[in-house]
Amino acid sequence: MAKANKISMEHGAGGEQMQSLIGNTILKNLTKTSAGTVGLDALDDGASITLLKGMDGFSAEKTELIMTTDSHVVKPIFFPGGDIGRVSVCGAINDLSVMGARPLALSCGMIIPEGFDIIDLEKIVRSMNVVLEEVGVPIITGDTKTVEGSALDSIMINIAGIGICDSPVRDSGLSPGDKIIVTGYIADHGVALLTKREGFEFNSDLESDVAPVWKMIEPALSVRTKDNKKAVSAMKDPTRGGIADSLNEMAQKSKVGIRIYEEKIPIREAVVTSCEMLGLDPLEIANEGKVVMGVHPDFADEILKIIRQHPYGKNAAIIGEVNTEKPGKVILESALGSTRYVDVPTGDPIPRVC
Amino acid sequence: MAKANKISMEHGAGGEQMQSLIGNTILKNLTKTSAGTVGLDALDDGASITLLKGMDGFSAEKTELIMTTDSHVVKPIFFPGGDIGRVSVCGAINDLSVMGARPLALSCGMIIPEGFDIIDLEKIVRSMNVVLEEVGVPIITGDTKTVEGSALDSIMINIAGIGICDSPVRDSGLSPGDKIIVTGYIADHGVALLTKREGFEFNSDLESDVAPVWKMIEPALSVRTKDNKKAVSAMKDPTRGGIADSLNEMAQKSKVGIRIYEEKIPIREAVVTSCEMLGLDPLEIANEGKVVMGVHPDFADEILKIIRQHPYGKNAAIIGEVNTEKPGKVILESALGSTRYVDVPTGDPIPRVC
Repeated sequence: MAKANKISMEHGAGGEQMQSLIGNTILKNLTKTSAGTVGLDALDDGASITLLKGMDGFSAEKTELIMTTDSHVVKPIFFPGGDIGRVSVCGAINDLSVMGARPLALSCGMIIPEGFDIIDLEKIVRSMNVVLEEVGVPIITGDTKTVEGSALDSIMINIAGIGICDSPVRDSGLSPGDKIIVTGYIADHGVALLTKREGFEFNSDLESDVAPVWKMIEPALSVRTKDNKKAVSAMKDPTRGGIADSLNEMAQKSKVGIRIYEEKIPIREAVVTSCEMLGLDPLEIANEGKVVMGVHPDFADEILKIIRQHPYGKNAAIIGEVNTEKPGKVILESALGSTRYVDVPTGDPIPRVC
Repeated sequence: MAKANKISMEHGAGGEQMQSLIGNTILKNLTKTSAGTVGLDALDDGASITLLKGMDGFSAEKTELIMTTDSHVVKPIFFPGGDIGRVSVCGAINDLSVMGARPLALSCGMIIPEGFDIIDLEKIVRSMNVVLEEVGVPIITGDTKTVEGSALDSIMINIAGIGICDSPVRDSGLSPGDKIIVTGYIADHGVALLTKREGFEFNSDLESDVAPVWKMIEPALSVRTKDNKKAVSAMKDPTRGGIADSLNEMAQKSKVGIRIYEEKIPIREAVVTSCEMLGLDPLEIANEGKVVMGVHPDFADEILKIIRQHPYGKNAAIIGEVNTEKPGKVILESALGSTRYVDVPTGDPIPRVC
């Protein structure tokens, strides 16, 4: 029983145990959790702040800001295709993007152990800057703390972000009939980090997909249905817990079923092989430059075409659709027609990757 | 020479070495650092985001948001007068407050070691909630990461915050003639933590001053000069580095001199005694519920009266004034008329207190 009262690695894995911790220990004890349409209890990728007329010199009728935060404890901090700097800045930009918000500004909080190499710190900051330049978003405020080397084994970075939108894209926005799009090869990030960390010989040229998705997503957000709603109905970036976690969360919050087709999911042969060898489910493995989205069926082809025009989206595919079969459940259909539930991951198959 | 390329505890102490690290390693490598009037290079307590007409459905002419971030690695996590939850939420609220911004919303990123007691986590969250209720500010988005117990010795919390104001109060706003107010007893937080951490017998009833300052500051912000400027010209919350660091930063950024009078500085007898025994300068020790402000001389008494009406400000005092003597320097005058420079702290006299 004592063990149940202690934090375990599963509590941070983005699955059921984490949801329970957040619900029973955090949400239960907080009474002020909302400043707009989307609050903490929505457990979305970020939350919104509604600015109303009359607020301290604010004279518009109403506008929505989106706020997000993410801490990064990646191991190793430098990996094929990126580093903790790139992944932390992309994390915030991507969380804003999947809420449908244009990133406006980021904050950066770093906790650094004594003895950490300043050259490495500089590499990390430069790597952040590449992404900031690409997307056109600034880091406007920061904080740096140092701790004894015995207290912390490596640098930890928190990035919070602010974005603006007319109305946020919610996890709960799926409707029956919507198509599900994934914007490229899944599981590259987690498998690339594992390969590097464990020093495996195979897949030595596999790289993380870590990238900022805003420029890829932005044009898709202007596609509107006849009643002037966004044709993109729901979005998530499938980081911890992979697309298994993202799709389940969307299905549960939207109270719909999702069916995806195995042979339509973009995945590298090398990733399939590694996952088979290591007993991992690629659906549960973290991505850092991908989006899973629901789109109105009449506009699915148009949006797919838009996404594919961007280099980060060139392997995008429609992988399934939303239905009313089993509300809250995700079903995977194989090429031969057999089906299985895609469960919410209960533990982290590869911890400390994002 | 090798040592110079490694992070040391002084790099996180809020003094000169930290400024050098931030300037040479962080700022130098970032090219996108501003989204409004106050950017990262101002190294203020937060930064501003200017929302302009035409931005994604935003129709006001212009408004300023303030963003801030702070990571907390306090040791011990429970201490007399507070805990890491209270100190982290107050930290963000206070950073917004000293920018003159009404706190709108906070984000919370927690990194928790495996084996951490969930009962303690719950206590921390409840303690956050007390402050949120007092000030009326929500935590709207969060992130929870767990790491192996061998990688991290205790919980770390990052809080980012968003506020709104008509125009920010800057560190650089002091003018010659302005009076300097400190809102109560200095150094209680740092000395209380040290006493608890080291198990000293003396001062066992000394408590941290950790508190949210917004409600105390808010009415002072509406005092206006004849040309309708805020009578409060500059503000800081003297956390790491104490009032020595805050006053030096304000003097340097405002290009003015500051003279403070030792006998006017509110300080508990017990804190003076402890500091003498331990060889610490109370001016360099962290506070977590205090504000140091510059105010227009014609309104200093009025603002002092307003501050003293709030329980957190009842021991506020005018401790000095701004002059043109030695721009960028802070001079301390003793009761007997002898003077010394108040230097920027070079190291952290008591690390891991905020």
